[in-house]
Amino acid sequence: MLTPDNKQSTSFIRHAPEVEPKRGLGHLIFGRHLATADAPHQTISKKVGLAVFASDALSSSAYAIDEILIVLILAGTAALSVSLPIALTIIGLLILLTISYEQTIHTYPGGGGAYIVARDNLGETPALIAGASLLVDYILTVAVSISSGVAQITSAFPGLLEWRVVIALALVAFITIINLRGVKESGNIFAVPTYFFLGMTLLTIGVGFFQYFTGTLGVIEPGSVEVAHSGETLQALTLFLILRAFSGGCTALTGVEAISNGIMAFKEPRSRNAGITLIWMSTILGVNLLGLTYLAHQIGVLPSHLETGFSQIARVVYSPGSPLYLTLLGSTTLILIMAANTSYADFPRLAALVAGDAFMPRQLQYRGRRLAFSNGIMMLAGIASILIIIFRAQTNALIPLYAIGVYLSFTISQGGMAVRWFRSGRLKLGESFQKHGMPLHFDPKWKSKMFMNGLGAVATAIVMLVFSITKFKEGAWIVLLLIPALVTLFMLIHRHYRTMATGLSLERYGEPPPYMGRHRVIVPLSSIHQGTLAALRYARMLSDDVTAVHVSMDPTETEKVQKKWLTWGGGTRLVIVESPFRLFLEPLLAYIEGILSNRQPNETITIVVPQFIPSKKVFNALHMQTADMLRKELLSKPGVVITDVPYQIP
Amino acid sequence: MLTPDNKQSTSFIRHAPEVEPKRGLGHLIFGRHLATADAPHQTISKKVGLAVFASDALSSSAYAIDEILIVLILAGTAALSVSLPIALTIIGLLILLTISYEQTIHTYPGGGGAYIVARDNLGETPALIAGASLLVDYILTVAVSISSGVAQITSAFPGLLEWRVVIALALVAFITIINLRGVKESGNIFAVPTYFFLGMTLLTIGVGFFQYFTGTLGVIEPGSVEVAHSGETLQALTLFLILRAFSGGCTALTGVEAISNGIMAFKEPRSRNAGITLIWMSTILGVNLLGLTYLAHQIGVLPSHLETGFSQIARVVYSPGSPLYLTLLGSTTLILIMAANTSYADFPRLAALVAGDAFMPRQLQYRGRRLAFSNGIMMLAGIASILIIIFRAQTNALIPLYAIGVYLSFTISQGGMAVRWFRSGRLKLGESFQKHGMPLHFDPKWKSKMFMNGLGAVATAIVMLVFSITKFKEGAWIVLLLIPALVTLFMLIHRHYRTMATGLSLERYGEPPPYMGRHRVIVPLSSIHQGTLAALRYARMLSDDVTAVHVSMDPTETEKVQKKWLTWGGGTRLVIVESPFRLFLEPLLAYIEGILSNRQPNETITIVVPQFIPSKKVFNALHMQTADMLRKELLSKPGVVITDVPYQIP
Repeated sequence: MLTPDNKQSTSFIRHAPEVEPKRGLGHLIFGRHLATADAPHQTISKKVGLAVFASDALSSSAYAIDEILIVLILAGTAALSVSLPIALTIIGLLILLTISYEQTIHTYPGGGGAYIVARDNLGETPALIAGASLLVDYILTVAVSISSGVAQITSAFPGLLEWRVVIALALVAFITIINLRGVKESGNIFAVPTYFFLGMTLLTIGVGFFQYFTGTLGVIEPGSVEVAHSGETLQALTLFLILRAFSGGCTALTGVEAISNGIMAFKEPRSRNAGITLIWMSTILGVNLLGLTYLAHQIGVLPSHLETGFSQIARVVYSPGSPLYLTLLGSTTLILIMAANTSYADFPRLAALVAGDAFMPRQLQYRGRRLAFSNGIMMLAGIASILIIIFRAQTNALIPLYAIGVYLSFTISQGGMAVRWFRSGRLKLGESFQKHGMPLHFDPKWKSKMFMNGLGAVATAIVMLVFSITKFKEGAWIVLLLIPALVTLFMLIHRHYRTMATGLSLERYGEPPPYMGRHRVIVPLSSIHQGTLAALRYARMLSDDVTAVHVSMDPTETEKVQKKWLTWGGGTRLVIVESPFRLFLEPLLAYIEGILSNRQPNETITIVVPQFIPSKKVFNALHMQTADMLRKELLSKPGVVITDVPYQIP
Repeated sequence: MLTPDNKQSTSFIRHAPEVEPKRGLGHLIFGRHLATADAPHQTISKKVGLAVFASDALSSSAYAIDEILIVLILAGTAALSVSLPIALTIIGLLILLTISYEQTIHTYPGGGGAYIVARDNLGETPALIAGASLLVDYILTVAVSISSGVAQITSAFPGLLEWRVVIALALVAFITIINLRGVKESGNIFAVPTYFFLGMTLLTIGVGFFQYFTGTLGVIEPGSVEVAHSGETLQALTLFLILRAFSGGCTALTGVEAISNGIMAFKEPRSRNAGITLIWMSTILGVNLLGLTYLAHQIGVLPSHLETGFSQIARVVYSPGSPLYLTLLGSTTLILIMAANTSYADFPRLAALVAGDAFMPRQLQYRGRRLAFSNGIMMLAGIASILIIIFRAQTNALIPLYAIGVYLSFTISQGGMAVRWFRSGRLKLGESFQKHGMPLHFDPKWKSKMFMNGLGAVATAIVMLVFSITKFKEGAWIVLLLIPALVTLFMLIHRHYRTMATGLSLERYGEPPPYMGRHRVIVPLSSIHQGTLAALRYARMLSDDVTAVHVSMDPTETEKVQKKWLTWGGGTRLVIVESPFRLFLEPLLAYIEGILSNRQPNETITIVVPQFIPSKKVFNALHMQTADMLRKELLSKPGVVITDVPYQIP
């Protein structure tokens, strides 16, 4: 036996095995890995960065326009023209947000998502609210983007309309499989659909405006579209209705925050490159939004559950069913799928961050098989699929749940930045302050920066409130209940970890306790063969004090065991436990508990269980999982250790 | 370390802990245990035996009469009078079966179920067919009896009709809970409903016949019953229709075999007592069947999905809603529930028998928590519940699946007995023969006995064929596919066990191999606290060659581990495995596999995994099940043993 003074050399050997996230099929499809935070040597240029981070934001225009129109139509076709001032207001908001996030990007070059900024500047609870909001939103991004993508397909091919839900679920399954295979943002492949979509929308806007100025732009014939009617009667164009339309349109800005999360992925100078990319992205988004809304207005696009606004614009600008028409809708579908795909990277990444602070299960921090990221991905896919089924893949029905989370996180993030500038202003030149997180320095421009971020916070807070009120009955209430519930859950989880850390702490642990003294080993055996003998040999290696236990349910079998024991038992003590009722576990437990209750102080008891490992997993159903059963019953007893000794057919 | 010559004393200690099947609630309700085969000292009298084994058979008359009428009505109300000759034919079959089973009971005093008789006299495949048939039938007994029981309730209280499925499922759940608590046949409590039902039916028949002979017997007014119409148009009274009605009525004889399975439960002389009880039971069943069919005919009972025949008889003989009317229906419901309950004893008992021959998972042999009988009971309840839901608790819809299994097992059992008598006849006086199972002696009456069992086999085979053909389309095909599928499954399971036994046999194993030599222990640690130190102490007790492994995903955490190690590591070697991708399992596996590939011959590697055991199970979701994950990955590697060392907050 080893004694405390028989010490081995203290040496911290460093071992770096060559292990990377699994690639598989995803590798074949998406090319080489381009890990962002994990592998800083692989950084991306602004052009690739735009492609990687813009899909979520740019794709939003595919449904935002419809969302504005579908509300305005409630006040009659004439009200549809209000879509233009609404779009302009949204673009104003976009400019404000862009300036706001510019500041965040330069302050947090390591990545400044809402959770980090809030944790740094506002404290735990706001950070958790931001985290919960974003997690809810990533799920909805998948559901909304995929539903909208399918709507583009069914606009072109109305025959597929009844397969809508099935197609959406198949797309979710496809993205999930790709992501489970361990693909992360792979810039080059992202570049293709983003620039393809960008080219197609700009071409469409260009051709459309050319036709407009040359007077050749067609219009939608009123009979050709089945106008969406929500069952509400014709209303006056009230402020409430306009605000309701506005909040639908605000979904266009979801995804604007993406770059601020992923600054680490850019080439140095990171903040500068990321900032420039943000401005590019916002400009393109603004041009798209304004151009398409204007065209939609001129063409007379009508909101419909059967045909998207994009499809209507395309069939007027080009011609129905023409190659360019199909290409625009195809590129739109593709970028919407890409947008859903970004949630698959964002959701587990944020979950890992929150888990790192012990507010979510800690294993979410780790990547790899059976772990964390896979679980996160499965959770994301599962909930998104359920939403798609419940809301029958109707983008319009999902929107009321969407965007609250995004705008809430915008508000918290911008508010956190404003508080940061305020604190910065109270420092003196050259002074610096670090509570935790990013150190704070005096910034001479703190007043103007505080104003911009503060304005951003107030504006997004107003949008969030408008959204919550105008969409409350349609489903926003679900999210308004869900977010506080999640925050409470995070806090309960945190309390558990804290209790555990305190309880197990070595702080007041005093002297290292002595090594355990006696070691008693028990080997349950149902029959004697090569496998169980291996377990017996193992047990005898552990200790001199080995007891084999046979639960006797069948006298013939017991006789066989006893006979074989004389040859093969190697002199080990064999106890036969009688079980007249053919019970197996109970007599064994009773025997073990008898030993436990009589044990000496400082005695450890190990139960060595032979466990057959079949060649095919399905055969597991044919074998008793004795070790598992004992583990469930005995693991809570201190000083009992359960060991499986596996055996196979040689 | 222990060497082979350091032998311990060989002593087979017998240990008989006081463990009985759990009782709990069931004990409160059903009184003391009355284990049959398990506790032979607790035997039952003929009167109690009748109560225990007759509920299945006697309760069948509650639906068999309706089953005859519901087919005959297809040829119009006049055809209903054919029910009398059909009932007489069924009673003829009952007499034949009784004589046949009498012979079985005297030949197999230890219990002569179809599976045992077939295995003994016909071989493996017929035995498996009998086993599969009976298992299928036990499930259907639950579904049919409960559905019929609910039909009695809804006949008296039509308002409950729409709750039919819910009531049926609640009853199944109730019986399941009682049985999971470990109740087996408890004679005294069985006696109450059986004799209650017996008293009530005989009273009803008596009063009915008294009214009949005094001319005061009423009739069903044609408008008072909503006659069942199956959607089939009015047909001629063809032979096919009569046979179809006959096969429905043959369900009355299901349960006749019950006593032959449970002979061991009777007081000595067992076979004699069991035989006499069988004759009593058959006589009562015959009287009930004939009396009730005759009364039903006189009263003009009409088949209906809303009111059972029993209810119609009762409301004419007594008066609708009267106490005696309600008492008859109540007693019928009760005995039907009791009949369902017998399957809960029969199904796991037969499964254990088949499992003992290694045709079903072997753990089905064992009783107790998480095991076998519980699994068998859950399976039975689950499938029966699904059937009840699918067939909307309509007895009439379930019948086509029922009875095939029973009659198939009748045929196999009687055929087996006939073969046995034939073999007996070929022996000489005093000569005896034992292949396996029950030894065979010359029997001077072998010819007449062979004739009776042979006749029984032929008659039941004909019923089975008639049943299969006439009810094929209505659902019999399901069972005709299911039974061969089950038999195939049994055979595949058997092959697996045989391969395993051969592979692990000690026959040609030669010398006992030497004890394993070197023992290397690896302890994965993510942080250093009281719990992980306990695992380290345990590891150092196992071997001098201990390596602690820390997967470094977070430099701060790793630094903490290294610092604490200097104080608490006790000089053990610590290896830091780098994981830049925040992978956890993969680097650890790579490290372990590196050690495995370089290991010396005869070296055993044990991985000691600290495992936190939370106070509440729900917290398990917050902790990595590292041991489980490693077990899944490594258990198939020879010479690797995985040990959990549990720790809790002290």
